Amino acid sequence: MKSTIITIGDEILIGQILDTNSQYISQSLNALGVVVAERTSIGDDAGQIVRTLDRSLSVSDIVIITGGLGPTKDDITKHALARYFGSSLRYDEATAEHVRTLLARRGVAFNDLNRGQAMVPECCTVLHNGHGTAPGMWFERDGKVVVSLPGVPFEMVHLMEDEVLPRLKNRFALRAILHRTMITSGIAESILAERIAAWEDALPPYLKLAYLPAPNIVRLRLSAYEVDGESVRQVIDREFAKLYDIIPEAIVGFEQASVEQMVHQRLIERGETLSVAESCTGGNIASKFTAQAGASQYFLCGVVSYSNEAKYEVLGVDEQAIRSHGAVSEQVACQMAEGVRRISGATYGVSTTGIAGPTGGSAEKPVGTVWIGISTPDKTYAVCRNCGTDRGQIIQRATAYAIKMLQEEL
Amino acid sequence: MKSTIITIGDEILIGQILDTNSQYISQSLNALGVVVAERTSIGDDAGQIVRTLDRSLSVSDIVIITGGLGPTKDDITKHALARYFGSSLRYDEATAEHVRTLLARRGVAFNDLNRGQAMVPECCTVLHNGHGTAPGMWFERDGKVVVSLPGVPFEMVHLMEDEVLPRLKNRFALRAILHRTMITSGIAESILAERIAAWEDALPPYLKLAYLPAPNIVRLRLSAYEVDGESVRQVIDREFAKLYDIIPEAIVGFEQASVEQMVHQRLIERGETLSVAESCTGGNIASKFTAQAGASQYFLCGVVSYSNEAKYEVLGVDEQAIRSHGAVSEQVACQMAEGVRRISGATYGVSTTGIAGPTGGSAEKPVGTVWIGISTPDKTYAVCRNCGTDRGQIIQRATAYAIKMLQEEL
Repeated sequence: MKSTIITIGDEILIGQILDTNSQYISQSLNALGVVVAERTSIGDDAGQIVRTLDRSLSVSDIVIITGGLGPTKDDITKHALARYFGSSLRYDEATAEHVRTLLARRGVAFNDLNRGQAMVPECCTVLHNGHGTAPGMWFERDGKVVVSLPGVPFEMVHLMEDEVLPRLKNRFALRAILHRTMITSGIAESILAERIAAWEDALPPYLKLAYLPAPNIVRLRLSAYEVDGESVRQVIDREFAKLYDIIPEAIVGFEQASVEQMVHQRLIERGETLSVAESCTGGNIASKFTAQAGASQYFLCGVVSYSNEAKYEVLGVDEQAIRSHGAVSEQVACQMAEGVRRISGATYGVSTTGIAGPTGGSAEKPVGTVWIGISTPDKTYAVCRNCGTDRGQIIQRATAYAIKMLQEEL
Repeated sequence: MKSTIITIGDEILIGQILDTNSQYISQSLNALGVVVAERTSIGDDAGQIVRTLDRSLSVSDIVIITGGLGPTKDDITKHALARYFGSSLRYDEATAEHVRTLLARRGVAFNDLNRGQAMVPECCTVLHNGHGTAPGMWFERDGKVVVSLPGVPFEMVHLMEDEVLPRLKNRFALRAILHRTMITSGIAESILAERIAAWEDALPPYLKLAYLPAPNIVRLRLSAYEVDGESVRQVIDREFAKLYDIIPEAIVGFEQASVEQMVHQRLIERGETLSVAESCTGGNIASKFTAQAGASQYFLCGVVSYSNEAKYEVLGVDEQAIRSHGAVSEQVACQMAEGVRRISGATYGVSTTGIAGPTGGSAEKPVGTVWIGISTPDKTYAVCRNCGTDRGQIIQRATAYAIKMLQEEL
């Protein structure tokens, strides 16, 4: 079953926003067994919307559209769809009632523009948007499906999960799409391809191999489209086992859930708790954990001890340690991790203290120097990492290292 | 002058990577005066590449393609282009020499696959890729230009800046494209549209208005395509001045300057300091400030008091207040803001306590209820906001409200 994804909005074409909707929709369609044949981004232009939709339906069975459903004049997707399907608009009382309730909760009056949002093409099935004012719309014609969703990412995600994916699953007989990625490190792409050429040539024809190079890493992905999932999964396992025998020294792992998701899961399973004391990462580690539903089961306390005073007043770091070794030091990282563990009573304490830049570096401790501390019921230690040269990169890398170190303790 | 951007790679269509190249190319073409009419992502499939290129050239004068230029079998863009232009491949000695040097520096031998990377269609102009092994290629036909670039983002960026943009500027007579964005806060999109309707209707026809809603913010963008830059820039200034007179209380800034950037600037100017106590926002407010270079000049301390114990042990919140009113209450929000201000000695304390969900809500305090507290040298108060229904949305909105409230105090 083939699909096309169309994202609508001038803000995409001028590069004002990054189109993350297409990536999410691609992943979720693939997981369901729907091939994405093409993705297109176009402007808020009725002619272009109609032409693109027409072309997409000539190659795909399913078209998912996002964007252009707001209450204002620049949003015209709904009118273009009504025109395409030759349908007039009707007032949907249930949508109007929902919008009225949502707005009332925010103390906003329901006006003519909101009334406009409750107008939907006669021929569509309305998909209830519990999280926003623009409803989703489901159209069918000649056995093909067109879905229109709001462009606000979280509204789109909820509608996909609650409405679109279950309906597609019921509507079409879908087979499996498999993607499995092995990560290699230390062998240049061209040399790697040479070494595994015989293996690659002997792959069954329904397995497609892709090389994805990144700094010091090449990902090898095996993909199979619209197959019997159970048997092909076993074939992929066997092929990866053969590959492992050819380049055992280069295999560093498989692609999987993010490290913070694994730590989150693990802490809940073990009934253990976590607190963090952050200096250079400035709350980023805390927010990675607390963004996950259920974090309150294990996350007790975070302290962003940006000033030295906060380090000793709140965390009980020894003033003498800061004076002798500096705030960015092994001793202070250890005392921060221990301190936050002690004041909160958590099983684990994690800390960061470093120089995020662009100023504050020295020859001895250049920008990018970060000490990461871990305190467990048995021990406390810290390691020093160089996390790059750019402030954002340093915060992200230090966060990743700290969460990885915690994972190794679990 | 119209353009189409084509990104090639199965990894995009399955959602394994986020396509950031399209955004960068869109921005840089717009800055040059080239309109992006459409962006398309397709797979590593020769037939699809040829069909998409043919269709793109029927509507655009310039087509920029990225991806599919690696040394391995899955990369086929170059062969598809040679086929489309009816050109055979030739061995480019300069490219081969460059690849040999690059690989030698990494201790990697030049092999048949690298030799293949030095093969280019006879009819193209080779664009030197100083940062990688795949050269860029420039094709012309019937007054139109097709450019093929590697998909690795930093290689693509260097080629755009060093080769493609200067050549396009020389090749075509380009006019200006202007985008200017005013940021409003505190007025819902539908109400805002109503209030500025007369202004919107009176805009000159070449100015296009777009509404871009985000949590507690609506961006208003005026765009003008292929105009005389100097005079239209003045018209936009005048229109924004009129807009300011209609909604002075809602204007929070221009362009990409976010509220946190403005607060950051303001605190540094005033020599005042800030500490935050976060419950439901989980470190997100702290990380918004500390992501900015220079935050250490005013940001003293953040406390992510997720557990009740952290609220009283660290922040000194009264146990009785939590017992009587609940952790999500006006009293606790005030005590958190006061507490973090007191323990850190900051000028301002900001706090959040709320129900981020998906569980933990009740009839009286549903998911999305957030109390935001502000403590200044003169007063402490808290307000209650409904921040939506989705965990990520609630965290983002509560963060935006809290930073906006702080801004109003400055």
